[in-house]
Amino acid sequence: MAARAGIVVTGTEVLTGRVADRNGPWLAEALRAHGVDVGSVVVVGDRPEDLRSALAFLSGSGVDLLITTGGLGPTADDLTAAVVGEFQGRPSSVDPALERRIAAVVERLTALRSWSTAPEASAAGIAKQALVPAGATVLEPVGTAPGLVVPVTEGRSGPPVVVLPGPPAELQGMWPAAVAAEPVRHALAGARELRQRTLRLWGPPESELAETLRRVDDQLTGLEITTCLREGELEIVTRYGPDAEDAYTRLTAAITADFGAALFSDGPTVDELVARALDDRGWTVAVGESCSGGLLSARLTEAPGSSVRVLGGVAAYANSAKEQLLDVPVETLEAVGAVSPEVAAALADGARQRFGADVGVGVTGIAGPDGGTPEKPVGTVHLAAVGPDGAAAKSLVVRGSRTAVRQRSTTLAVHLLRQLLIGGPPA
Amino acid sequence: MAARAGIVVTGTEVLTGRVADRNGPWLAEALRAHGVDVGSVVVVGDRPEDLRSALAFLSGSGVDLLITTGGLGPTADDLTAAVVGEFQGRPSSVDPALERRIAAVVERLTALRSWSTAPEASAAGIAKQALVPAGATVLEPVGTAPGLVVPVTEGRSGPPVVVLPGPPAELQGMWPAAVAAEPVRHALAGARELRQRTLRLWGPPESELAETLRRVDDQLTGLEITTCLREGELEIVTRYGPDAEDAYTRLTAAITADFGAALFSDGPTVDELVARALDDRGWTVAVGESCSGGLLSARLTEAPGSSVRVLGGVAAYANSAKEQLLDVPVETLEAVGAVSPEVAAALADGARQRFGADVGVGVTGIAGPDGGTPEKPVGTVHLAAVGPDGAAAKSLVVRGSRTAVRQRSTTLAVHLLRQLLIGGPPA
Repeated sequence: MAARAGIVVTGTEVLTGRVADRNGPWLAEALRAHGVDVGSVVVVGDRPEDLRSALAFLSGSGVDLLITTGGLGPTADDLTAAVVGEFQGRPSSVDPALERRIAAVVERLTALRSWSTAPEASAAGIAKQALVPAGATVLEPVGTAPGLVVPVTEGRSGPPVVVLPGPPAELQGMWPAAVAAEPVRHALAGARELRQRTLRLWGPPESELAETLRRVDDQLTGLEITTCLREGELEIVTRYGPDAEDAYTRLTAAITADFGAALFSDGPTVDELVARALDDRGWTVAVGESCSGGLLSARLTEAPGSSVRVLGGVAAYANSAKEQLLDVPVETLEAVGAVSPEVAAALADGARQRFGADVGVGVTGIAGPDGGTPEKPVGTVHLAAVGPDGAAAKSLVVRGSRTAVRQRSTTLAVHLLRQLLIGGPPA
Repeated sequence: MAARAGIVVTGTEVLTGRVADRNGPWLAEALRAHGVDVGSVVVVGDRPEDLRSALAFLSGSGVDLLITTGGLGPTADDLTAAVVGEFQGRPSSVDPALERRIAAVVERLTALRSWSTAPEASAAGIAKQALVPAGATVLEPVGTAPGLVVPVTEGRSGPPVVVLPGPPAELQGMWPAAVAAEPVRHALAGARELRQRTLRLWGPPESELAETLRRVDDQLTGLEITTCLREGELEIVTRYGPDAEDAYTRLTAAITADFGAALFSDGPTVDELVARALDDRGWTVAVGESCSGGLLSARLTEAPGSSVRVLGGVAAYANSAKEQLLDVPVETLEAVGAVSPEVAAALADGARQRFGADVGVGVTGIAGPDGGTPEKPVGTVHLAAVGPDGAAAKSLVVRGSRTAVRQRSTTLAVHLLRQLLIGGPPA
């Protein structure tokens, strides 16, 4: 049995969806690397009683380690440190040395800003941020908020609580110190290696895969298999201990036997595969996109170092932009309309020519919610890719909202590049 | 006291961060419209025991309604319906009429697909999806998965559980039927109106705001105030019942008195303000962006109907693209480099000219992690906006990761447009 951890994410802004939580998933992955499994993540607002019950729930569920994120700022709704201290039976008081270190950081940050901070505002906020439960380990601030490792008070049993700040950069910067703290090392001492592998299929329905898994179920002891269908990609993620490596080999064999034609990756994302294929040949790429409005350019430039392969893209929303920036012939636009296989091909050609790239991609479609017709309903998407050795194209109608159509066309374009450059299942 | 609900999000893919949860936040907002407050969201993997303890935790926390999302698919790891039925003391059995309706949907979907589904795979999956706990209300499928409203068994007390599918479009499509189901109507009968208002500031630090809130704290009874700083924007969201309207007026007055110059919105997002300002004048906009790689074009085209105001954009990653597609003078590039105020202005001018737009925006910078120098460190960003009545510019060094620099430059560009079109605090 692997070691287990529970995570409490605090913040009304996360609970109500104004900010997406990035810390829970990041911590789940960081813990997995230490052989620790996360059973649940509880998101609570900035209310002390909700935070207390979340701590009690996770603590009572038998986890070896508890982690909280957020609620360490200077405002009154930032109450995590005090609540955790109380929960662990350890009263908090201001640590004067820590208070001075935070004050120095705040002073330095204020000097960089145009807005002048009222000194009394800072003082109250800093004192609040320097509150430390008795016997807790302080994790030095990466921003202004220190983290804490708070063991349960003497004589009681329960997991230690690691208190981390909400901003992802601060949390991630503080993580090595948290893992090195003695109570955390002790809690994780029993953890063993937990492997994670991913297979990626393009095309087959999830129900078909379910049938394969049922058929070989008795050969898969020790594997925890999760399947997830998104944007046409079927992702199979398996976690297992080192003793189940043979079972994983059997799983891979069964999936390859039944879905070999659809299996496009045994790990890397489609984005990584496309980047690698371009770099292997020393090729560059450029984009001409309409309905995806810039998302494809943004996605291709997401990875560090992408400037070696991506020359750029045109988000040609207006027809005039398609003509003037990407040389889409006005006759084509008039004859078949902007949403057509011909214009997708012309956008790909135009991008390739204008940017002087080896490979061009074109995307055109109707993202909606308006603009659909009986012949070209909302969700109609045409894609084209062209390179030195050939071309590929795809036309379809995507179901769903404007956001879904924009994102799905972007994913389809990346798969069309994969098909053109590497082969595998057609986009 | 408002009615309270608890939400359980299921799915190992959500727990491990491979898929971001969009349902918890959407439901929290939908429930708020019914006067229902969400105290916590629990994310669990596809393990029956974790789902059971999450249900027990939330059920025991005194909520009036429980909602689960996900785990209704055809695969073996989709186990929500059965676990909820058992938890509520209601054994499940296959509903033959429902099974036939799901089969008809699957047949229709299969006909649209190139991949042929093995009939026995579908049959097992469909039977699984047609499992209904005794006495539960079936919510008709929007995709293939039906939803459920499962009251607790006779003689026991506890909140009803609404079981909804994971795909956001299916969940949202099913929501009206869920709210109309008798057990849900009954659970929400005591809910009263819950208002939510937002103020948005640009510039001041959160600690300063905290001081203002402390000063007027005794005048704010009945308000639940959450502050959240992100990408330079300080968002103040307040929830309250109708009887606290005067307290909200006092809060607004205090913030206006202390931060009037930074207050740029009493509700709409900066994106909405910019769109409205352009539409009021009948103006169009075009983008020339480098380090943001397409994100600014994508953001400006996110809203439905944005094609009336956005002509398009060029993601000019390579210097050759800046020259050839946006007429950035090669002499400027050579003299001051691509990351400079001069090139930001030239990108804005070039986009405006080439697309024939009323307003042009330019963004250039070093997103990192490589490419920084002592003079131009990673995070250096220059922005420019130009329109018929004038121009605006901003230069700064953004801290953080590649992703942070890309996103922050995008937000800064939208604020620069706001400054140019509406005024308010300088970006």
